[in-house]
Amino acid sequence: MTSAFNKVGVVGRSRQTDLEDVLAELLAALGAAGADALLEDRFQEFAPRGYRVWDREAIGAEADLVIVLGGDGSMLSAARSLLKFGKPMLGVNRGRLGFLTDISPDTLTEQISNVLEGRYSSEERFLLDVCVERQGDVVAEGDALNDIVVNSGTSAQMIEVELYIDDKFVNRQRADGLIVSTPTGSTAYSLSGGGPIMHPSLDALLILPMFPHALSSRPIVIRGTSEIRIDVLERNRIHPPVTCDGQVNMTARPGDSVVLRRNPDVLTLLHPPGYSFYASCRDKLQWSGALVS
Amino acid sequence: MTSAFNKVGVVGRSRQTDLEDVLAELLAALGAAGADALLEDRFQEFAPRGYRVWDREAIGAEADLVIVLGGDGSMLSAARSLLKFGKPMLGVNRGRLGFLTDISPDTLTEQISNVLEGRYSSEERFLLDVCVERQGDVVAEGDALNDIVVNSGTSAQMIEVELYIDDKFVNRQRADGLIVSTPTGSTAYSLSGGGPIMHPSLDALLILPMFPHALSSRPIVIRGTSEIRIDVLERNRIHPPVTCDGQVNMTARPGDSVVLRRNPDVLTLLHPPGYSFYASCRDKLQWSGALVS
Amino acid sequence: MTSAFNKVGVVGRSRQTDLEDVLAELLAALGAAGADALLEDRFQEFAPRGYRVWDREAIGAEADLVIVLGGDGSMLSAARSLLKFGKPMLGVNRGRLGFLTDISPDTLTEQISNVLEGRYSSEERFLLDVCVERQGDVVAEGDALNDIVVNSGTSAQMIEVELYIDDKFVNRQRADGLIVSTPTGSTAYSLSGGGPIMHPSLDALLILPMFPHALSSRPIVIRGTSEIRIDVLERNRIHPPVTCDGQVNMTARPGDSVVLRRNPDVLTLLHPPGYSFYASCRDKLQWSGALVS
Amino acid sequence: MTSAFNKVGVVGRSRQTDLEDVLAELLAALGAAGADALLEDRFQEFAPRGYRVWDREAIGAEADLVIVLGGDGSMLSAARSLLKFGKPMLGVNRGRLGFLTDISPDTLTEQISNVLEGRYSSEERFLLDVCVERQGDVVAEGDALNDIVVNSGTSAQMIEVELYIDDKFVNRQRADGLIVSTPTGSTAYSLSGGGPIMHPSLDALLILPMFPHALSSRPIVIRGTSEIRIDVLERNRIHPPVTCDGQVNMTARPGDSVVLRRNPDVLTLLHPPGYSFYASCRDKLQWSGALVS
Repeated sequence: MTSAFNKVGVVGRSRQTDLEDVLAELLAALGAAGADALLEDRFQEFAPRGYRVWDREAIGAEADLVIVLGGDGSMLSAARSLLKFGKPMLGVNRGRLGFLTDISPDTLTEQISNVLEGRYSSEERFLLDVCVERQGDVVAEGDALNDIVVNSGTSAQMIEVELYIDDKFVNRQRADGLIVSTPTGSTAYSLSGGGPIMHPSLDALLILPMFPHALSSRPIVIRGTSEIRIDVLERNRIHPPVTCDGQVNMTARPGDSVVLRRNPDVLTLLHPPGYSFYASCRDKLQWSGALVS
Repeated sequence: MTSAFNKVGVVGRSRQTDLEDVLAELLAALGAAGADALLEDRFQEFAPRGYRVWDREAIGAEADLVIVLGGDGSMLSAARSLLKFGKPMLGVNRGRLGFLTDISPDTLTEQISNVLEGRYSSEERFLLDVCVERQGDVVAEGDALNDIVVNSGTSAQMIEVELYIDDKFVNRQRADGLIVSTPTGSTAYSLSGGGPIMHPSLDALLILPMFPHALSSRPIVIRGTSEIRIDVLERNRIHPPVTCDGQVNMTARPGDSVVLRRNPDVLTLLHPPGYSFYASCRDKLQWSGALVS
Repeated sequence: MTSAFNKVGVVGRSRQTDLEDVLAELLAALGAAGADALLEDRFQEFAPRGYRVWDREAIGAEADLVIVLGGDGSMLSAARSLLKFGKPMLGVNRGRLGFLTDISPDTLTEQISNVLEGRYSSEERFLLDVCVERQGDVVAEGDALNDIVVNSGTSAQMIEVELYIDDKFVNRQRADGLIVSTPTGSTAYSLSGGGPIMHPSLDALLILPMFPHALSSRPIVIRGTSEIRIDVLERNRIHPPVTCDGQVNMTARPGDSVVLRRNPDVLTLLHPPGYSFYASCRDKLQWSGALVS
Repeated sequence: MTSAFNKVGVVGRSRQTDLEDVLAELLAALGAAGADALLEDRFQEFAPRGYRVWDREAIGAEADLVIVLGGDGSMLSAARSLLKFGKPMLGVNRGRLGFLTDISPDTLTEQISNVLEGRYSSEERFLLDVCVERQGDVVAEGDALNDIVVNSGTSAQMIEVELYIDDKFVNRQRADGLIVSTPTGSTAYSLSGGGPIMHPSLDALLILPMFPHALSSRPIVIRGTSEIRIDVLERNRIHPPVTCDGQVNMTARPGDSVVLRRNPDVLTLLHPPGYSFYASCRDKLQWSGALVS
C-alpha cells in the first residue's frame, strides 16, 4: 500500500523521555508505509546514521504532512511557525494525552499507519494575529493558536484598558488583564479563569477579563471575523506585556493599541480514527469524576 | 415623507402603567408618518373610538412592521408567535430599557419617526426549536428566542441525563438541569448561572449545566447548526419539565429524548439609530459600576 | 480488651447491595470487641436469629455509639433524628467514600476494632434549625446538617426575598432561591453552585444565591452564631418550599419569614485513625485530576 | 462637651484633591471638640502656621485616636504601620466611599463631632503575618490587612506549590498563584477572583487559587487561628514574589516555605453612627443594580 503522504516531516521537542525509542518506532512506521521522513535538525543526536536532518522551514516547504512530537506546547509552537506552509499536522504525545497531540506512544505504529493509509479525520483550526500599534504604526506583531494575554505583567498590579470590538466601544476594564482565546485555546488557560469551552469548529473568539474590578464583567464570545482592539490607557504606569501562547513576545506602552484579528490562513489538524473532541474533554477534564456527594 | 412601512402592527402586553398614554402617542406618531396602525385586540379597551382591532395572527399576515409594547418578555412572546410571518419587529419598553425593547417611552415619537422614515439598523436573531421524542415519536414541541431549560422541576432534586451533540456523546450529567441558550438569551437566565455573553450575531448555542455534580463541568459553546440531544435516563424518578423562554410547555419522561435545533427562520429585529449591543450591556449590566475597591 | 463503647447502635439504610454481608461482618466485629449491638428495626430481615431489634429513638437513648450504614444521606438523616441524644456517631459507607461515612466495607473489621479500642479522632459538627414564621407565629420547623434551601420550587420561576442577618438588612434578592449551608454542607450542594469549601471546624454559615439576577451577588460567609432571616416578599405569587438536607419539609407563603439559626446541640462525629478532611477532599473532588493542559 | 479622645492623630495620603480644605475642616472640627491634633509630617505643606507636625511612629505612641485621610489603601498602610500601638482608627475618604474609610468629606464635621463625643461603633479587625522560611530560617517578613498573594510574578507563568494547613497536606496546586485573604480583604482582590464575601467579624481566612489548572479547585475558608504553609516546589524555575496588600515586599525561591498566621494584635476600627457592613456592600458592590433582564 502506498502512503497518502510521501514526505513526512517530524518536528517537536528534543528533550523528552524515551525520545530515541519513540523516534525509532516512528521512523520505522514511516519506512514501512513507504514515506520519506524529514527529521528536524534538533533531533540530530537521536537520528539514525545516514538520516539527513532538516531545518523547520525546509520541512514546512517540502513535507506533505508534519508530525509533531511532544505535548500541546510543541504543537502550538509548530503551528505558529509552519502555518504559512499550509501543510496538515498530526500530534504525537509523550504519554499524556493532549488536546492537540492525540496519538499515544502506546499505539504509535498502528495510528501512524492508519493516518498514512488515509484513515484519519481532518479539521481546521485558526490562529489569532496580534499587533501593537503606536501612533498609527505597527511596532510589534505575533500570533497564537491558543490565546493572547494582555496583562500588567507584575504582581498585584492592574491595568486599565478600553475594549473595542469592530470599532465599537465595549467597556473600560480595570483588571489584572484580558485573555483573548480561540476555540482551540478555550480548553487551556481561559478555562482556568472561568471561560466556557468552545467547540474547535466554532468561528468565534472569547474575551475573558482576569480578576476584573467590575463584578458584572463576564466572558464575551464574539464572531471569529471580528477585530478586537484593546487601548492601553495613558494613565497606566506599567508597560503591559503581550503573551502569545504563553510566550512573552512584545510589550505595549500606555497609549498603545493592541489589535487582534483572526489569521486568514487555517491549520489543518489530522486525527487518528475514532477521534472525538468531547472524548478528549471527558478524558482530560475528567468529566466523569470529581463528583459532589 | 412617506413611511418605509405602510401597515404597522402594534402588539404586546395589555397590563402596563400609562399604557393609554403610550398607545395614544404611538398612534399619533404612526398617523403623522402616514402609516396604518393594526392594533392587537388585547388593547381594545385603550383604543380610540373607531380603531379596528386585529388578532395577532392577522397582524402577522398583514403588517409590514410589528411594534411590540412591553418588556423583553413581551418581545419573546411576540417573536415566538409571529416568527413564521417573517415581519420585522421593533420593541418599545415600559420605561426600563430591555435588551430587545430598546425604544424608551421618553423618546417614543422621535424614535418611531426615525424608524418609519428609514433610519434604523436591522439584525437577525434566531429561535431554538425543541421537541420531546418518545420511542421515536415526537410527543411535544416548542420554541424559544432566549433559552430552553430541562430541569428536575422540583426543589432539591437532580436529574441524570446524557448529552449528545450532533449524535456524538458528550457526557453524562447529574445536575439540577441544563440550560440551552441562544446568543439572544445569553444576557438573560444563563448569565445568572455563570454563562458567557454571546454577541447576538454569533451563530452559536450555549449549553450550561445547572448546579452540576461534576466540578469540572463547564458551559459549552457550539455551532448554531448543531443538534443537541438530551437523553433523560430511565433511572430518573421525576418527569422533567421543558421550559421555553420561562414558560413550561411540556414535560419529558424518563427514557425520552429532548432534541433541540436552530429554527430555520430568522427574526428581523429593528433598532433606532445609535443602537449598540454593547451599550445595552453597559447600561443593563452596569459595567461601569460595582467596582471592587 | 474491653470496648470503649459497650452498647453500639447500628442504623442506616436498609436497601443496600451486600447489606447482609456487611451487617454480618459488623456484628462479628462488635461481638469480638465485647460490645452489644443494638440493631435498628429496619434491618430486621437481615438480622441473625435471636438479635433483638430496636427503634431508632430507643437506640439513641441506649447506645454509647451509633454506627450509620449507608451513604452521606443516611448520616444526614441519622444526625437529624439522633442529635438530641448527644451520642457519638460513626459512618460506614457502601463502597464509595463519603465525606461523612469514611469507613469502607473493605476495612470494616479493622477500622471498627480501632474505634472500639479507642483509636479514633473526634470532631464536632453543628446542625442548622429553620422555622417559618407567619404573623409572629412559628408555623413549621425543621433542621439540617448540610443545608437548607429556600427556592421557588418551580421551573423557570424566581422568588423575591429580603435577606437580614442579625436583624440587619443585607439586600433584596431576585433569584431562583437561596442556599444556607453549614461547613459540613459546603462540600455538597452549595459547592455545585460555586460556593467555597469551609473547614468542618469553622463556626460559620454560608449564604449562596442561586441564579441571582444581580450580577454582583456573591456567596456570603457569616458567623455561625448569626441569625438569618429571609423575608418572602408579599409580591411573590408562589409558595416557596423550604428544603432541609434535600427533603422538602415545609412551604412558606408570601409574607412569611424563614428564620435560620445554629442548633445549640453538637453532633460528635468519630473517624478511624488517619482521617483527614483534606484527604477526603482530594479523593472526592479529585484535586489531583482534571488538569487543564 | 469634652472629647472622648484628647489627642487625635491625622495621617494618610498627602496627594489628594482638595486636601487643604479637608484638612482645615478636620482641624477645625477637632479644635471645636477640644481635641489636640497630631498632624503627620507628610501634611506639613498644608498645615496651618504654628501646627507642629509628627512622624507616624510618634503619632502611634501619643494619639488616643488616629484618623486616616485617603482611600482604603491609605487605611491598609496606616493599619500595618500603627497596629502595634493598639490605637483606634477612623477613616475619612476622598469623596468615594471605601469599605474602611466610611466618613465622607461632605459630612466630615458632623461625623467627626459624633465620634469625638462618643457616638460611634467599634469593631476589631485582624492582620495576617507572613514570613518566608529558607532551610529553617526566616529570611523575610511582612503583614497585611487585606490579603497576601504568592504568585509567579510573571506573565503567562504558573507556579507549583504544596499547600498545608495546620501541618496537614491539602493539595498540590499548579496555578498562577494563591491569594490568602482576611475577612477584611474579602471585598477586595479575592472578590474579583470569585471568592466569597466574609463578614468582617468572622475569625477566618480564605485561600483562593488563581487560575488553577485543576478544575475542581475551589476557594477554601478555614479558621483564623490556622497556620497556612505554602511550599514552593524545587521544580519551579521562577522566584515567586510575595505581595502584601498589593505591595511586593519579598521574593521566595524554589524550596522555600511561605508561612502565614493571624497577627495576635487586633486593629480597632471606629465607624460613625449608622454604619453597616452590608450597607457598604450594597453601595460599593451595587447590589441593587446590574440586573439580568
